[in-house]
Amino acid sequence: MTDSRQTPLAQSLPASVPFVGPETHERQRGAPFVARLGANENLFGVSPKAVAAMQASAAEIWKYGDAESYELRQALSDLHGVAPDHIMVGEGIDGLLGNLVRLYVGAGDAVVTSLGAYPTFNYHVAGFGGVLHTVPYKDDHEDIAALMAKAHEVSAKIVYLANPDNPMGSWHRGADIVAALDDLPEGSLLLLDEAYVECAPAGTAAPVDVTDPRVIRMRTLSKAYGMAGARVGYAMGAVEVISAFHKVRNHFGMNRCAQIGATEAIKDQDWLAHVQAEIATARDEISRIARENGLTPLPSATNFVAIDCGHDGDFAKVVLEALVARDIFVRMPFAAPQNRCIRVSCGPEAERAAFAAALPLALEEARRKRG
Amino acid sequence: MTDSRQTPLAQSLPASVPFVGPETHERQRGAPFVARLGANENLFGVSPKAVAAMQASAAEIWKYGDAESYELRQALSDLHGVAPDHIMVGEGIDGLLGNLVRLYVGAGDAVVTSLGAYPTFNYHVAGFGGVLHTVPYKDDHEDIAALMAKAHEVSAKIVYLANPDNPMGSWHRGADIVAALDDLPEGSLLLLDEAYVECAPAGTAAPVDVTDPRVIRMRTLSKAYGMAGARVGYAMGAVEVISAFHKVRNHFGMNRCAQIGATEAIKDQDWLAHVQAEIATARDEISRIARENGLTPLPSATNFVAIDCGHDGDFAKVVLEALVARDIFVRMPFAAPQNRCIRVSCGPEAERAAFAAALPLALEEARRKRG
Repeated sequence: MTDSRQTPLAQSLPASVPFVGPETHERQRGAPFVARLGANENLFGVSPKAVAAMQASAAEIWKYGDAESYELRQALSDLHGVAPDHIMVGEGIDGLLGNLVRLYVGAGDAVVTSLGAYPTFNYHVAGFGGVLHTVPYKDDHEDIAALMAKAHEVSAKIVYLANPDNPMGSWHRGADIVAALDDLPEGSLLLLDEAYVECAPAGTAAPVDVTDPRVIRMRTLSKAYGMAGARVGYAMGAVEVISAFHKVRNHFGMNRCAQIGATEAIKDQDWLAHVQAEIATARDEISRIARENGLTPLPSATNFVAIDCGHDGDFAKVVLEALVARDIFVRMPFAAPQNRCIRVSCGPEAERAAFAAALPLALEEARRKRG
Repeated sequence: MTDSRQTPLAQSLPASVPFVGPETHERQRGAPFVARLGANENLFGVSPKAVAAMQASAAEIWKYGDAESYELRQALSDLHGVAPDHIMVGEGIDGLLGNLVRLYVGAGDAVVTSLGAYPTFNYHVAGFGGVLHTVPYKDDHEDIAALMAKAHEVSAKIVYLANPDNPMGSWHRGADIVAALDDLPEGSLLLLDEAYVECAPAGTAAPVDVTDPRVIRMRTLSKAYGMAGARVGYAMGAVEVISAFHKVRNHFGMNRCAQIGATEAIKDQDWLAHVQAEIATARDEISRIARENGLTPLPSATNFVAIDCGHDGDFAKVVLEALVARDIFVRMPFAAPQNRCIRVSCGPEAERAAFAAALPLALEEARRKRG
């Protein structure tokens, strides 16, 4: 049913969803998941100080949030040593992505990303009439040189690079990304999605000069900070890039409890360190489980592990579906050859044990079906 | 500082904010407000059951919200007797407005509203390159016949009508709005903003057939339900209008605690009735205070009272600034002749008393300055 009153672009768009959420799965299945390991949520949870702050502020939810997210931006300013006017807070990276694409990408404008990278970014590019150009992964890494070359070829408005990468968990040294900025075409903006960077080894965060207008970095409270349901992300960059969000953003769009909780979460770096250690342990354990089943876990700088199931995407898909049928929620990459993997989020011992119990059965089923 | 990589439209937009928030005021003043009566927040607060539910779910904020807002839409479906596929939940009416304008308004497309109506709607129209056409208020009411006539004249894609109206508090009978639908041009969508409708007399809510594709209604948890800081709004309409949001919305954009709290708030109609009574009392009291000071309160079907200060906009502005200087946060309409008024939100006795104490002094100052 298309509504002819809509814009031609809107009429051309499909009603799509980049991801099917676990609750939707559960309603379709008629059963809950035992292990929620598919959405790269942080099962180790948010800072108890953040929880307490959100609980204490719940009764004041009648107040609109602060249009400037002032306290949160101050905390981020202190954390990063970056002046607040270089920081934009938004409704998760997804919200920031939508506004950034809206600002930079008009109908027919070229955008470059990797084939199989973050689908929600692609969704926004399509949603504003942009034309997506992709380059393949190289050895399960986003290929920086190929991205830059493609950006020159198509005169890209935005070049998307996630470091660390989702869905493969691979990463580049931050210094290599900064070095590559000199290969970025004039007229292009490098969108550096660092959603998982707090899970990565030292040296992964790109040491970008925050006044450099060639790049905008995005971070989130959804992953290592454990606040996916709060919808808090932020961008850092040059003032002329950051201030442009004021042209299109919903100034009162932030949930007030989320602002308050995120501020406490950012200040509680001890909790972050605790979570980082838990994630490291979980990565090792998930990798061990994979190996015990004859599979190959990929090195990861994120809060998930991509596990190479050893065959093609059809095989991995059967493994995934067999896991889901056994109440284990996991996801997998969309594009070949990455889709030979399943993607398992880090979680505590109980969830890992459930995964460990289900995986041999799922593999057996997949191998039987494969014949 | 304009970034030449941005779209021509983005480059043309000002970095603007439809409203200055109270926290921004407070930081600029270096002092807190004593009475927060400017943003039409609900100082009587949210349902204690909603508070309890948000507190209980705070520690699970590591989970993304449900992409379908299923439970909330079920509760709304039960409340309104409307099937869930006629209901879209979004990040406040502001968020829904942005997406609706994006879907219907392309560069140069005409949009009709009243001169001095909701600025955030106008902001979104400008933000997507639409051309805004306005008609004046008539006796402090939005002029339905004039809106329809203008819509014909300019072939409007969207006609905006708030019922009850903000900032004047006036209202039309819902039946009159339904009758006017026959005057809506083919190709136009009537956007009926019912943000304040729970504060209005019976018969104000327009008895629209939810399958009628000529109109989309918007409601919010921000006003009578007391959850402005949560960012929860919803739209009701025909499936072909409602489903279009799936083309552009951020599917995981809702705060999870907000979804849970809003569901409880919708179910707690007893609390709503309590708030409605408090608002009615507060309206009477604010009106009484206005009259005691020789001013004229306008009849209101909202959670605020527009008070006619008896002179022009310049005079009302001095009254407003004198109130703000006395720690009373109020706002005023943007456009003449409505800007002869100040707009005072309903609040409890303590805030009303602070307003009552400050108003005579503010008026004296304004009259003195006027000479």
